[in-house]
Amino acid sequence: MASLKARLQHSVTPNAFRAYLAEFISTFFFVFAAVGSALSSRKLMPDVAPDSSSLVVVAVATAFALSVAVFIAANISGGHVNPAVTFGMAVGGHITIPMAIFYWIAQMLGSIMACLLLKVTTVGQHVPMHAIPQEMTGFGASMLEGVMTFALVYTVYAAGDPRRGALGAIGPLAIGLIAGANVLASGPFTGGSMNPAYSFGSAVIGGSFRNQAVYWVGPLVGAAIAGILYDNVVFPAQAPDSLTGISDGVGV
Amino acid sequence: MASLKARLQHSVTPNAFRAYLAEFISTFFFVFAAVGSALSSRKLMPDVAPDSSSLVVVAVATAFALSVAVFIAANISGGHVNPAVTFGMAVGGHITIPMAIFYWIAQMLGSIMACLLLKVTTVGQHVPMHAIPQEMTGFGASMLEGVMTFALVYTVYAAGDPRRGALGAIGPLAIGLIAGANVLASGPFTGGSMNPAYSFGSAVIGGSFRNQAVYWVGPLVGAAIAGILYDNVVFPAQAPDSLTGISDGVGV
Amino acid sequence: MASLKARLQHSVTPNAFRAYLAEFISTFFFVFAAVGSALSSRKLMPDVAPDSSSLVVVAVATAFALSVAVFIAANISGGHVNPAVTFGMAVGGHITIPMAIFYWIAQMLGSIMACLLLKVTTVGQHVPMHAIPQEMTGFGASMLEGVMTFALVYTVYAAGDPRRGALGAIGPLAIGLIAGANVLASGPFTGGSMNPAYSFGSAVIGGSFRNQAVYWVGPLVGAAIAGILYDNVVFPAQAPDSLTGISDGVGV
Amino acid sequence: MASLKARLQHSVTPNAFRAYLAEFISTFFFVFAAVGSALSSRKLMPDVAPDSSSLVVVAVATAFALSVAVFIAANISGGHVNPAVTFGMAVGGHITIPMAIFYWIAQMLGSIMACLLLKVTTVGQHVPMHAIPQEMTGFGASMLEGVMTFALVYTVYAAGDPRRGALGAIGPLAIGLIAGANVLASGPFTGGSMNPAYSFGSAVIGGSFRNQAVYWVGPLVGAAIAGILYDNVVFPAQAPDSLTGISDGVGV
Repeated sequence: MASLKARLQHSVTPNAFRAYLAEFISTFFFVFAAVGSALSSRKLMPDVAPDSSSLVVVAVATAFALSVAVFIAANISGGHVNPAVTFGMAVGGHITIPMAIFYWIAQMLGSIMACLLLKVTTVGQHVPMHAIPQEMTGFGASMLEGVMTFALVYTVYAAGDPRRGALGAIGPLAIGLIAGANVLASGPFTGGSMNPAYSFGSAVIGGSFRNQAVYWVGPLVGAAIAGILYDNVVFPAQAPDSLTGISDGVGV
Repeated sequence: MASLKARLQHSVTPNAFRAYLAEFISTFFFVFAAVGSALSSRKLMPDVAPDSSSLVVVAVATAFALSVAVFIAANISGGHVNPAVTFGMAVGGHITIPMAIFYWIAQMLGSIMACLLLKVTTVGQHVPMHAIPQEMTGFGASMLEGVMTFALVYTVYAAGDPRRGALGAIGPLAIGLIAGANVLASGPFTGGSMNPAYSFGSAVIGGSFRNQAVYWVGPLVGAAIAGILYDNVVFPAQAPDSLTGISDGVGV
Repeated sequence: MASLKARLQHSVTPNAFRAYLAEFISTFFFVFAAVGSALSSRKLMPDVAPDSSSLVVVAVATAFALSVAVFIAANISGGHVNPAVTFGMAVGGHITIPMAIFYWIAQMLGSIMACLLLKVTTVGQHVPMHAIPQEMTGFGASMLEGVMTFALVYTVYAAGDPRRGALGAIGPLAIGLIAGANVLASGPFTGGSMNPAYSFGSAVIGGSFRNQAVYWVGPLVGAAIAGILYDNVVFPAQAPDSLTGISDGVGV
Repeated sequence: MASLKARLQHSVTPNAFRAYLAEFISTFFFVFAAVGSALSSRKLMPDVAPDSSSLVVVAVATAFALSVAVFIAANISGGHVNPAVTFGMAVGGHITIPMAIFYWIAQMLGSIMACLLLKVTTVGQHVPMHAIPQEMTGFGASMLEGVMTFALVYTVYAAGDPRRGALGAIGPLAIGLIAGANVLASGPFTGGSMNPAYSFGSAVIGGSFRNQAVYWVGPLVGAAIAGILYDNVVFPAQAPDSLTGISDGVGV
């Protein structure tokens, strides 16, 4: 009980508010670039169906913007930029529940604001939303989003692991790149969200919550599994040879 | 008064001139690649409207060239390459006003020279200028450019913050990547300048100053807000847990 | 004999299993992105032959995903993600034969599972397989794949070399980038596999083993030569000026 | 005289031969990816003129492959991969003339072999060569190639400068990225070679030396100027505040 109170107090300190602000700003920038790039691509080719080059536009914007969003928040809030990542961190005990809730609120607000800004400034453009094609099931789509979020959260854990040594410097890049690669792999199927705040924000401003569950269930489950697996199986804290790897250090 | 004189003297030392030269060279390279890539894309497809792949051309050129332009000037002039960045730094007190003015001059000259070189060597190609579509208002366009410049300058502050530790090594990349992501998000709307020197140089050589105010007002306001917010709210100098972040270090 | 027994025991310790799991996960993520991106591209443009933008989709997915796959496994399993790399490491004596066999099994399973997931979730999409055009010979294709795998494994050796100093931090990126560049160079000819597990997994799920030998013979030979050349000729352990290079350190 | 003899002897030591081999291998890989990607793009779209997406293919291949080519040779030969870079280093006194000549030979051979391999394995594909459009003058093209090579060699100097501190880790990336950005800016005009070995190798195998002078004169002059400017003006050895930059360290 005392512990709960302490945690609640910890979540309303000035430093905690700085972390929430950092999450808001980073999620805003990320969703701005991701949604904005889809919007740009459609504005350039309004009468054609999306093609491979539109997929490149969104994937590169995702990779670049997420790398930077994580980078700028890294040593303030941990650079989650994503409710699924925050959930994966909470499951692993790296963030308290009260703080995680504030993180979620900050991320949601950031995403909604970014979509709103795009809608207002571009005048009359329709904010694009995540969707799945006719033939796919909601279960299949959730599984796809879940597996990709697993990859993302696993990479977040790896990037934040101090045992990774000098490689840690490119951690934020790795997080952005895996997201970009997954968008390329899943674009025409689920859109490659891996981020409930991103899907939610565009749904709020775009005006439709169709298939919204797909973008929550899959990512949250995938994130939880990634956190548990990384901390307990792949790279437990007590692993004796954790710094050198089992091979003799060549091969990175 | 003595202080003003000292500052003026500080701005005309050999080292100061080296910094101005570095800004000139970096801005020249950046604008050469950004404007040149738009020119290339139009030369390849002269009879078609720009499509998603032309957007990729300009965005990737922006990301790559800005990363390098910042990298090569980083420890000489700070690697601003952009009057808005210099303004954001001046607002935060990181550069004196007299020096900032010389930075602006160097950046403007670099941009104009790059556009001139492209016009002369490519013989008869029209230098592309930043423009906004019919339906957008000047205010909306300024806001869009302002928000994107906010993101850019905020990233510049984060990249230059010594408290970021090993992550600092990828700082110049982060600056280039956020610019590239923003070009993808705003290409068909404002062109994604975020840089008054870039817009001004192409306007001088391209021969039209239509909407030029959009590319000055928005970026300068956005840059100032970013500088004030970063230094005073998100990451103040006295923040006690600034090095570790509020979460326990996992998650980068 | 005792030595063989010791090696066998070494290959079934908990740490060894962590390494196999890491290889499984990384290969899964990599093949998911590489095969998924080819699938996405065809889904977007079902009635057109692949064009340059589809090549960009697959190459960027390869570069991004392989960088991350190597990054997340680097200090657990060495980050091979590829039976050819494991073979090249075994030739150089950096991994024992029993462990190499388990690495291969983990990589194969990861690749097959990734292709299976894509087939199941995307419902009715045909998993794309590596193929060579009519006019090419199997020998020419093997040679092309062999040379590209040589480049890849040579880069893996370079990236893992502790004498590379601070540059080591970008090692995983370098590995991903060379793979992406090679996909761009060879896409319409051999598909740019450089990875027998990748080709095998897609063949198992896609249902055809035509030309499969091309994707085994070339890569394994190329990998072996790279390992031997790097360790013995280009950068032998006893090289006296290995840290500074023969030029005086400028030029990186 | 004694000095000349000593230099000649220095250029035929085992370590010198390792450096030549490293230059051969790196130039081979780079030219393979650059020329191969142009070949791929034409193979995919044989009946259409190159468009923006073909430009992206070549530029990304250039950026990725050059980054890696420099990375793998960095601490063996300095990672020049380009006769113009070697020339710029010789002008600055960072490599002796006899060694520079052997570097040139290794780079030429690497480039020719890469083009030959592509021609042989792809059966009947024509190796693409650098060319300039009708309306451009040879002088204009030389100037364009010269300015871009200036940017490249200037970046090589910056990347190799130990005073750059932690940023040095991304040096090889910066070199690749500036080359990629310049290809995007100049593709339909000069092809963006910046590398006489690259242009020469494709000319030898492609069978035409038309405009070859453009790809030698411009790059060599640009490289020489970059070397002189960097060492003597922008960042002289005795610069007192060279490590911190003239601004106070923020802004990278």
